[in-house]
Amino acid sequence: MFATRAVVLLSGGLDSTTCLAIARDEGYECTALTFAYGQRHVCELQAAARVAAAYGVTDHRVVRLPIAETVHSALTGDGAVPKADRVEEIDTGIPSTYVPARNTIFLAHALAVAEDIGSGDLFVGVNAVDYSGYPDCRPEFIEAFEILANLATRDAVQGHRFHVHTPLLHRTKGEIVRLGLALGVDYGLTHSCYDPSPDGTACGRCDSCLLRRKGFAEAGAVDPVPYATPGAGGG
Amino acid sequence: MFATRAVVLLSGGLDSTTCLAIARDEGYECTALTFAYGQRHVCELQAAARVAAAYGVTDHRVVRLPIAETVHSALTGDGAVPKADRVEEIDTGIPSTYVPARNTIFLAHALAVAEDIGSGDLFVGVNAVDYSGYPDCRPEFIEAFEILANLATRDAVQGHRFHVHTPLLHRTKGEIVRLGLALGVDYGLTHSCYDPSPDGTACGRCDSCLLRRKGFAEAGAVDPVPYATPGAGGG
Repeated sequence: MFATRAVVLLSGGLDSTTCLAIARDEGYECTALTFAYGQRHVCELQAAARVAAAYGVTDHRVVRLPIAETVHSALTGDGAVPKADRVEEIDTGIPSTYVPARNTIFLAHALAVAEDIGSGDLFVGVNAVDYSGYPDCRPEFIEAFEILANLATRDAVQGHRFHVHTPLLHRTKGEIVRLGLALGVDYGLTHSCYDPSPDGTACGRCDSCLLRRKGFAEAGAVDPVPYATPGAGGG
Repeated sequence: MFATRAVVLLSGGLDSTTCLAIARDEGYECTALTFAYGQRHVCELQAAARVAAAYGVTDHRVVRLPIAETVHSALTGDGAVPKADRVEEIDTGIPSTYVPARNTIFLAHALAVAEDIGSGDLFVGVNAVDYSGYPDCRPEFIEAFEILANLATRDAVQGHRFHVHTPLLHRTKGEIVRLGLALGVDYGLTHSCYDPSPDGTACGRCDSCLLRRKGFAEAGAVDPVPYATPGAGGG
C-alpha cells in the first residue's frame, strides 16, 4: 500500500504547484492538502482548486484551521504586509508575515492524512534559497520533522517509513520556474501575492511577488499573472 | 518575557488536569489549550472548562480542528471503542482509538500559541507507563518534538528555547493520582471515559476508564467519578 500515493501540500502558489507537478511526474497518485487558515490572500484557495483540477487530483482536502483566531501574523490580518520595489530591498531576518509554527502545523496535518490513506510520502514545496527567511523552510527543520514523523505514528511503529520530499529546497526561483515550465505547469493558474487587490490582482511588491518575478526574470520567461505594479523582472 | 507563562494541553482528563496542577504549583501562569476534534467523548470539553475555571485560568483556548473529517479513528466515531473488564485484558499493541498524528497536531498548535504569547514552556500530560500504547506518548517522540520546536520558530532563531515539560511521563497511574491528590486536585471535575453514556457517565470498561480505576486503586483512593459498571479498582 506504500507504493504510489503521496500527500502534497498545495497552497496554490508557484512553489507548491511545481511540487505537485514533480510528484505527478514521479508517478505518485496525489492527495492535495490545502489549508484555509484565515490568510488574507484567500484567492490562494481558489488557485489551489484550479491547480488541483488541472492535475486531475480527485482527493483535494481543504482543512479549515483557526490559526488566525489563535495567533497573530501580518499574513492573517494583523499589521501591514511589507512591500519593496526590488528583491534586494526585502528586509533580512524573519518578516512580519511569519505565522507561528505554520509549517509544523501543516506538516502535522499532512502526516495524519498520509497515515489515513496509507501513504508514506509527503511533498512540500519549501525553498531555502530564494525565500522569505521563514525558519520552518530550512533543511534542518524538514529533517527534524521527518524524524518526528517516524516516531509519532502507528505506521512508523509497524515498520513503515515516512519521507518528506522537498524537491525545491535547494533550487533558486529561476530554477523552479524553468523546471515547472519543462513539466508543462500553467503558472497562470497559480497565485502567490500576499496582499492582492480585491479583484485578486497581485500587488507585485510583497516578498512573495518580488521573489516570483525574480524567478521568471531569471528563467527568461514571462509570468502569465498580471501585476498591479510594473516590475523589473517578469510580469 | 520567557519567565512564567506556560501553555498546558488540557483535555479535561486525569492526566492533563494533574499536569495543569503541577504547572501551577511550579509557578507558571497557564494558558490552557483544548482541542475540539470531533472526539466522541465531548464531555471532555465540559470537563476541561470546569478544570480551567477551577484553576483560575483566564486564557483557555478551545481550538476546533476538523480531524474527524480528515482521518479515521474509533475515537472520532469510526468503529467501536474496545472494552475489557480488567487492565490486564487491554489489547497490547496500538488500539483502534489511536488518532493519526494527534499529539503531533496538538503540540504543533501549542507551539504556535506558546510563540504567540511569548512562552517557551509547554506542558503535556503524556504518560509512557500506564497508557494505551499510543506511539506519540513515548519519550523519544517528545524529545523529537522539542528538537523540532527549537528549529521551527522565530523565537528559536532569536535564541529562545522551547521546553516540553512531561511531568507524568515516567509515573504510574497510581503515582499520578497520589501526586494530584497531594496538590489538591478535585478529580470529580475531570472526565476520562472514551465512550460515556449520553448523560456523561463513564463506561468503566474502555482503556481509559480501566487505567484510571487502576490508578485510584493503586493510590488507595476513591474515584469521585461514577461508573456505569462496577470495577475492581476505585470508583
